[in-house]
Amino acid sequence: MEFQIDKTDGNARACTIKTAHSTIQTPVFMPVGTVGSVKSLDAVDMSEMLGAQIILGNTYHLYLRPSDEVVKHFGGLHGFTKFPNSFLTDSGGFQAFSLSDISKADSNGIMFKSHIDGSTHYFTPEKVLDIQYNLNSDIMMILDDLVALPATKERIALSIKRTTDWAKRAITYHQEKQAQGIGKHQNIFAIIQGGTDKEFRHISANELCALPFDGFAIGGLSVGESNALMYETVEYTTPLMPKEKPRYLMGVGTPEDLVENVERGVDMFDCVMPTRNARNGSLFTSFGKISIKNAKFQKDESPLDPECDCFTCKHYSRGYLHHLFRAKELTYFRLASIHNLHYYLTLMKQMREAILKGEFKAFKAEFYRKRGK
Amino acid sequence: MEFQIDKTDGNARACTIKTAHSTIQTPVFMPVGTVGSVKSLDAVDMSEMLGAQIILGNTYHLYLRPSDEVVKHFGGLHGFTKFPNSFLTDSGGFQAFSLSDISKADSNGIMFKSHIDGSTHYFTPEKVLDIQYNLNSDIMMILDDLVALPATKERIALSIKRTTDWAKRAITYHQEKQAQGIGKHQNIFAIIQGGTDKEFRHISANELCALPFDGFAIGGLSVGESNALMYETVEYTTPLMPKEKPRYLMGVGTPEDLVENVERGVDMFDCVMPTRNARNGSLFTSFGKISIKNAKFQKDESPLDPECDCFTCKHYSRGYLHHLFRAKELTYFRLASIHNLHYYLTLMKQMREAILKGEFKAFKAEFYRKRGK
Repeated sequence: MEFQIDKTDGNARACTIKTAHSTIQTPVFMPVGTVGSVKSLDAVDMSEMLGAQIILGNTYHLYLRPSDEVVKHFGGLHGFTKFPNSFLTDSGGFQAFSLSDISKADSNGIMFKSHIDGSTHYFTPEKVLDIQYNLNSDIMMILDDLVALPATKERIALSIKRTTDWAKRAITYHQEKQAQGIGKHQNIFAIIQGGTDKEFRHISANELCALPFDGFAIGGLSVGESNALMYETVEYTTPLMPKEKPRYLMGVGTPEDLVENVERGVDMFDCVMPTRNARNGSLFTSFGKISIKNAKFQKDESPLDPECDCFTCKHYSRGYLHHLFRAKELTYFRLASIHNLHYYLTLMKQMREAILKGEFKAFKAEFYRKRGK
Repeated sequence: MEFQIDKTDGNARACTIKTAHSTIQTPVFMPVGTVGSVKSLDAVDMSEMLGAQIILGNTYHLYLRPSDEVVKHFGGLHGFTKFPNSFLTDSGGFQAFSLSDISKADSNGIMFKSHIDGSTHYFTPEKVLDIQYNLNSDIMMILDDLVALPATKERIALSIKRTTDWAKRAITYHQEKQAQGIGKHQNIFAIIQGGTDKEFRHISANELCALPFDGFAIGGLSVGESNALMYETVEYTTPLMPKEKPRYLMGVGTPEDLVENVERGVDMFDCVMPTRNARNGSLFTSFGKISIKNAKFQKDESPLDPECDCFTCKHYSRGYLHHLFRAKELTYFRLASIHNLHYYLTLMKQMREAILKGEFKAFKAEFYRKRGK
């Protein structure tokens, strides 16, 4: 992976990341393609219509179905899904923890039962890398030990200790594998834990950032804490991370969260929000969210957002989308997902342009002004 | 509507129909866009990707939701859905009969309860035209009296009498409306009934074809009778229909049904089969149907049909589609629907070419040979 900082504006950064599959300009939002498709969209939608430079795949889901062996048979995620740009895959730990009825972490890894068929599986730091070698993602995340907030100090202390232990095992294993010619073009990111406790974040960041990972993520946020506490934790953590490597805030968030955390020095984001909200009828616009099921849109001939130039806004009215949503038509899901992802990806581009011009503060003020905030 | 016969080959016909919105080359298959969208697809998919010259909208559904008044507000179906080519709308009678828990025909029309909210409605020959004027479809179907097969002779006799009575009321009403400037660019088709009884089909065809409709449909088939009986009834009925007007076989059918009935002189078809089957995992190919959920496709890197040049076959493997189907991903529905509709529309084009070359018999033999029949 090549990484360079193109410009900084305060703590906000505009960077360029080059992987084996694409050039990623940051700040970047990674749409979530859980099981090898961004829900309701295909690879042509993602690469040609939306211009996504990188999408996220979920290791837990792909491991269980169709299995990483099947994905490998097709030449990895790129060959399987035909999305030509970069993939980041998570470690699977979060889903083993959140989707499984039964999951249990011990010092060696995480035991869990499949949400599909109840079969028992065990993820270790090495196992999740083996899966990700088969998936051939451009960026692999290591297994970390997650904690639901609020948590006791003891539990958080255990989490960051385990996370560091597992990170050491992961980087050692990855170096061995690369020496054997496996995963040579794949990059590996560690995940800083520590809840919203500054001391723990400090320890976790220091321990992990001393290791030769290709990038670092802030994990364990956006799990129920207040926005203010999330922003404060990010603001505290980013200065502890190396400048010369990408910084990824996992599972975040709303458009406001993206703006606030770019300002605090984050380069990369992922979240199911744009696609999940789209399916639920919640659509993002330059002036805030709208609920398309609202009866007031029934005869509305205007596009979702007059400032938007996405495929959906170019072709269809609020009234038609309102009808499709109410009638539960499959067509709705794609049109709404295109719009919301276009909104997110465009917001990132606008932030990058503002950073390049040294106008991030003005951009942020205008972003809030349009929303009446 | 302009209509011309370009070529005949036996009883098979290649014709051209010009409506206010598009030029339709027959034999033609009309994809079904029940509530104003062909399920999982949008107007750009239909017009640009698939090149559909005409699609069918369901009067019953559109009347109930969003209502024909709302569709009229957007400038009719074209303005509402943004599909630029022709629309044919059915009369709503079939759905009032099949979807409603309670429906009852009398000499004046059909009373039914909405499947959405249980509200009571009454369709008359005039009412369903008023709805279709608001929808501004290019071809309107008149209200007919449907009979589930098998039925008694008395019930069929009543059906064809009512259908003729309602047809007379419909054509009179339409002429009055057109004289008032309403529906001036809209065409009106009558529907020949009579079950599989030759005598009744003869009476119904004679009575209706004496009236100045723009085209004629064969209704009341593909409702449970054998294929052989359907083909026999069509073969008997088409010669009773005027040569100089389009002939439409409603709700039919499989690829084999299309070939057999084109051979018997039918110009137009509609059916939910390509889109419904797609959603259920049943995909059409030049060598017959395949069930994409079959485990043998898990590692299959080939396209659905090596002879197919649709968007789906150009980009994706059977293995990926198998995975998307198994994982119930929304993306699957669009890719599968594109393939099945492309198969149907291409089959119609191939039949037209064969007719123009006077090679329909050879085409039919090859069609069955590829399927091992």
